[in-house]
Amino acid sequence: MSGNASENIEQLSIDTIRFLSIDMVQKANSGHPGLPLGAAPMAFVLWNKFLRFDPKEPKWPNRDRFVLSAGHGSALLYSLLHLYGYGLSMDDLQKFRQIESKTPGHPESITTPGIEVTTGPLGQGFGNGVGMAMAEEFMAATYNRDGHKIIDNYVYGIVSDGDMMEGIASESASLAGHLKLGRLIYFYDDNSISLDGPTNMAFTEDVPARFRSYGWHTLTVENGNDLIAIERAILDAQEEKERPTLISVKTVIGYGSPLENSNKVHGSAMGEDNVRKTKEFFGWDPDKKFYVPDEVSTYLQEAVKKGTELHNQWKADFEEYRKSYPQEAQSFATSQDGDLPEGWDANMPEFKLDEPLATRQASGKALEALRATIPWLLGGSADLASSTETPGKDGSGSFQPGHYNERNIWFGVREHGMGAILNGMASYGGTRVYGGTFLTFSDYMRGSIRLAALTMAPVTFIFTHDSIALGEDGPTHQPIEQIASLRTMPNLTVLRPADAYETVEAWKVAMSRLKGPVALILSRQKLPVIDQQKYAPASNLWKGGYILSDSDGTPDIILIATGSEVHLILEAQEKLAAEGIKARVVSMPSIEMFNQQDEDYRESVLPLSVPKRLAVEAGVTMPWYRYIGSEGDVIGMTRFGESGEGNAVLAFFGFTAENVVKKAKEVINKKSK
Amino acid sequence: MSGNASENIEQLSIDTIRFLSIDMVQKANSGHPGLPLGAAPMAFVLWNKFLRFDPKEPKWPNRDRFVLSAGHGSALLYSLLHLYGYGLSMDDLQKFRQIESKTPGHPESITTPGIEVTTGPLGQGFGNGVGMAMAEEFMAATYNRDGHKIIDNYVYGIVSDGDMMEGIASESASLAGHLKLGRLIYFYDDNSISLDGPTNMAFTEDVPARFRSYGWHTLTVENGNDLIAIERAILDAQEEKERPTLISVKTVIGYGSPLENSNKVHGSAMGEDNVRKTKEFFGWDPDKKFYVPDEVSTYLQEAVKKGTELHNQWKADFEEYRKSYPQEAQSFATSQDGDLPEGWDANMPEFKLDEPLATRQASGKALEALRATIPWLLGGSADLASSTETPGKDGSGSFQPGHYNERNIWFGVREHGMGAILNGMASYGGTRVYGGTFLTFSDYMRGSIRLAALTMAPVTFIFTHDSIALGEDGPTHQPIEQIASLRTMPNLTVLRPADAYETVEAWKVAMSRLKGPVALILSRQKLPVIDQQKYAPASNLWKGGYILSDSDGTPDIILIATGSEVHLILEAQEKLAAEGIKARVVSMPSIEMFNQQDEDYRESVLPLSVPKRLAVEAGVTMPWYRYIGSEGDVIGMTRFGESGEGNAVLAFFGFTAENVVKKAKEVINKKSK
Repeated sequence: MSGNASENIEQLSIDTIRFLSIDMVQKANSGHPGLPLGAAPMAFVLWNKFLRFDPKEPKWPNRDRFVLSAGHGSALLYSLLHLYGYGLSMDDLQKFRQIESKTPGHPESITTPGIEVTTGPLGQGFGNGVGMAMAEEFMAATYNRDGHKIIDNYVYGIVSDGDMMEGIASESASLAGHLKLGRLIYFYDDNSISLDGPTNMAFTEDVPARFRSYGWHTLTVENGNDLIAIERAILDAQEEKERPTLISVKTVIGYGSPLENSNKVHGSAMGEDNVRKTKEFFGWDPDKKFYVPDEVSTYLQEAVKKGTELHNQWKADFEEYRKSYPQEAQSFATSQDGDLPEGWDANMPEFKLDEPLATRQASGKALEALRATIPWLLGGSADLASSTETPGKDGSGSFQPGHYNERNIWFGVREHGMGAILNGMASYGGTRVYGGTFLTFSDYMRGSIRLAALTMAPVTFIFTHDSIALGEDGPTHQPIEQIASLRTMPNLTVLRPADAYETVEAWKVAMSRLKGPVALILSRQKLPVIDQQKYAPASNLWKGGYILSDSDGTPDIILIATGSEVHLILEAQEKLAAEGIKARVVSMPSIEMFNQQDEDYRESVLPLSVPKRLAVEAGVTMPWYRYIGSEGDVIGMTRFGESGEGNAVLAFFGFTAENVVKKAKEVINKKSK
Repeated sequence: MSGNASENIEQLSIDTIRFLSIDMVQKANSGHPGLPLGAAPMAFVLWNKFLRFDPKEPKWPNRDRFVLSAGHGSALLYSLLHLYGYGLSMDDLQKFRQIESKTPGHPESITTPGIEVTTGPLGQGFGNGVGMAMAEEFMAATYNRDGHKIIDNYVYGIVSDGDMMEGIASESASLAGHLKLGRLIYFYDDNSISLDGPTNMAFTEDVPARFRSYGWHTLTVENGNDLIAIERAILDAQEEKERPTLISVKTVIGYGSPLENSNKVHGSAMGEDNVRKTKEFFGWDPDKKFYVPDEVSTYLQEAVKKGTELHNQWKADFEEYRKSYPQEAQSFATSQDGDLPEGWDANMPEFKLDEPLATRQASGKALEALRATIPWLLGGSADLASSTETPGKDGSGSFQPGHYNERNIWFGVREHGMGAILNGMASYGGTRVYGGTFLTFSDYMRGSIRLAALTMAPVTFIFTHDSIALGEDGPTHQPIEQIASLRTMPNLTVLRPADAYETVEAWKVAMSRLKGPVALILSRQKLPVIDQQKYAPASNLWKGGYILSDSDGTPDIILIATGSEVHLILEAQEKLAAEGIKARVVSMPSIEMFNQQDEDYRESVLPLSVPKRLAVEAGVTMPWYRYIGSEGDVIGMTRFGESGEGNAVLAFFGFTAENVVKKAKEVINKKSK
């Protein structure tokens, strides 16, 4: 009898999740009912029997993480958050997919408590979960002590056919297998249907075999409604310590609805009539909408109570830990708050004026200094450590199985996976993260850079080899349009420092930002170190753009540049002065930060009264028209690059002080309107 | 004796390839010597014994294709092209990696005869080869007749560890297995070293097992210097008709050099001394540089002769084919020339003024019409056919094993793979191709869009759901920065038509362009059909931007918009007129095409004498500052979107005729300088 009663209440809970979800979709007349109907059982078993969470304090550091990589199933997640007391009200559910609601079309971590990461663009959540599991291993290896397991959570996820097809998931999965992330457990909602129809039109690979080839442990649940089998699979997965686990759960998309097992139930509301029929199939009152049976409410509170107790126990454990390891506990707390240790920027490198160095080299030195003061700063590169000057190119200090306390991550040639993993690590908390590749290959990871920007994740992207000046590798590797296209992204701060000292300041900006990603755009080639006695100090970088060197009296023209081109305009300024032409030199490392200054400051740098302006940047010209006005000009790129020695290529495209002088005179001599 | 002599000349040929390659790298003092030293034997066996090619006519349609996906090994390819008579001179080899040489840092298809596709960005070549093999199956199924095999070539490639790690290769490989592309044969140069060091730091998956899970046939050659084993593997691969083959060849990077088997030999010149020692290891005269022994020249001519004979035989076969199938032969020839059939645009759809439709719907109709007249126009979408309105959403006419003559490709949720495959299909010749996804997910395939642009590939990208107006799916799916960021890419023509008729014109532009990709930016929401009697005809789209509706007399302000926002400014024009304000309405579907018009035309549309301008586009504002001058303004997006009903979201962000009127007045009333 009690077995039966338990089964009944479980079934009732699952159906409650199902119907809240499809009621939301139906009311919004938009959304994805198919996934919740099929995946509700696995979600329920996981949340009710395994997931450690405390809805009142959803950021509890040692909570288990749950990622709905198939973010289009957001209604499922909102139903769970409502039922498990995360403060998402019935009213919130009824506002599904409405402007400024807490229940937008896809789950958003910055909008809704309890949502770990923003998902929807397929494959991203998969990679985020891998990043979370990596962060978990780092935190556990760093902070746990004998008898004190401060960190031992699991990372769970539900991933879909669509996730599985995306390359970003393949990249992340391969690295997860290599890293032996035993605490990562994914359900694969294997329903054989994607948006356009049956997956057998395009996707017939043997998914479990593929995951075994990556080093994963794979399990299968033949019937997605079999709660016992789901439970057993999770227990098996937890037993496996050395490999991440993929549990393939055979489900029926839109289960129980007249549209089940077809793509018609994937991505749009099924209609009132079909909703009624679905409720009838489950023996549910078709007239009841947004309905939670009292016994379900009561029953689900048990899981909440259990989670709260676990959290309280953890708090008590942490207090014990604090007594034994006060310093570690302090670090832990500081990092959890997103703060930096005192004196974090006390040891930034100094440079010699007569020793030119690439900004990527200055970045490497700055990063070394910061890693010494910020023990939770970690990252790596996509197989370009020796080029991007991220630490660990000699193989030392590598984050590897058995060495999870180390901080140099080898991402492999997996840019998109790296991006998603960095976002996941940032969302995990307690870490500050960076990742590097060539600027050109920022294109490969744009999907995850966008999610970093959308979710205000404090990730630092290190993009080196920032122009045609990289030279011989040629047009395939020479970025032309990337600086401009990164600047189009809201919330992303793009910084292209002009020399070593501006690079140090750029890193300070990156570390100080607790919200929103930063892209550091760095040169391959050596650049002079700017004399801060002669010119304005590099700390002006914090204003985004500043007068690096002014003319005596009102300038005839304002020269504006970023990065390596700042040296060209400085040289041109002198040449122009020799001809009696007064030029102001503006270094503009970050357009975004300059735009955030007040109007008075901006006017002081770029006064309306000086309409003659010339911007110089070894990239496409689009960003500069806003600053040069109707009378100015831009020296930039209008085509792809050339393979050749860096300086020769620069000269080929007109990036010389002589050409700046020539163009500056043309601008000055152009008749004003 | 003769066996020995044959072995000797083969070894001498291989070593000649090796030393030409490392001499090139050493002279340039830049490049990648490691791959050529290790991979020369497999390249030699393939080119000398199997590859069907005619260096005098490198575009022979039924030639075998060879893709060096590991494009950093370009020196290897240039050596082959030199030795096999492609007209790459010794002087060209000596100019390796110099400006405007035929031997740039990475292989470029538009620069050097004999290079099928531009490679270097890892994984792209892998996907290109899959696209070539798909095009081959389409062409074979379409043109071959009993007794007439016009098309039966193979597609070969050399892929590296780096390629294997990239998600784009995983996506393409999974689709290749699904499609049973038996004529695709890749060598995997398995040297266990990537740029940063040993691959066992990040890449320990079982690659052959992974490929078997995709449905590939896998073979292993244990010693990359074993010519017999390589030959046998290729023969085995050719025997396999139903599966693509991956031949893992265990090689030693930098074989024979003092730096062999280390990442030090991957990506930079090894130094004169090491070059000498390497030559000595192979019993070669270390003083000889850029040296081709006479007997090697003579020997390799045999392969050239064989290839030329095969080509001549093919020409004779084709003449027979032409007699039996004159119509097919004509189509074949026309498509090979990149031409379109006569009357290709004779049946474009017409629309009713009172039946609004989304530009994605108009695009679907235009595409249907074009597919009826252009039998070699094929493509598909990344599991969004029903959303992007690409044909075949009902599953009919699907390109599948046994149905390779069909033209609806199911790419699966694999945007990046789709991009590389489209580029490969375009490079194969004889096809015109398109691929669709949501505009937001153009981010996922940016790496391949860039290569389409760089190589001037005539690929049409269909990007629908082009703004916040897509509505409920919310910020993860709403493009904000994508239109601008696509516009930053040289050679890419971005077209955002305002209504159904502009969409038809946009498709005509796309089909007419034989060089360079086109991105069609299309609305999800329905839009009015513009009355071409009342306003200017849509054929003006060919000018990029045009006066859609002028004011009586000199305008007080010029309103500029693209796509759906054109309707807002038309409405605003009327409202302003009612208040006595004269506004000109400019539709600007393609900034790139407008910029290509002569100055007189541009001045006639946007005269300097009317400095008051307001641009309206539901995307970031960056592209518009060039056109609004110092006195204008832009209504655009400055943050990510919102989940909600499309029109509500538009209104929320100020995309209403009322707001256009308000802003227009502000611009007019702003004090001129």
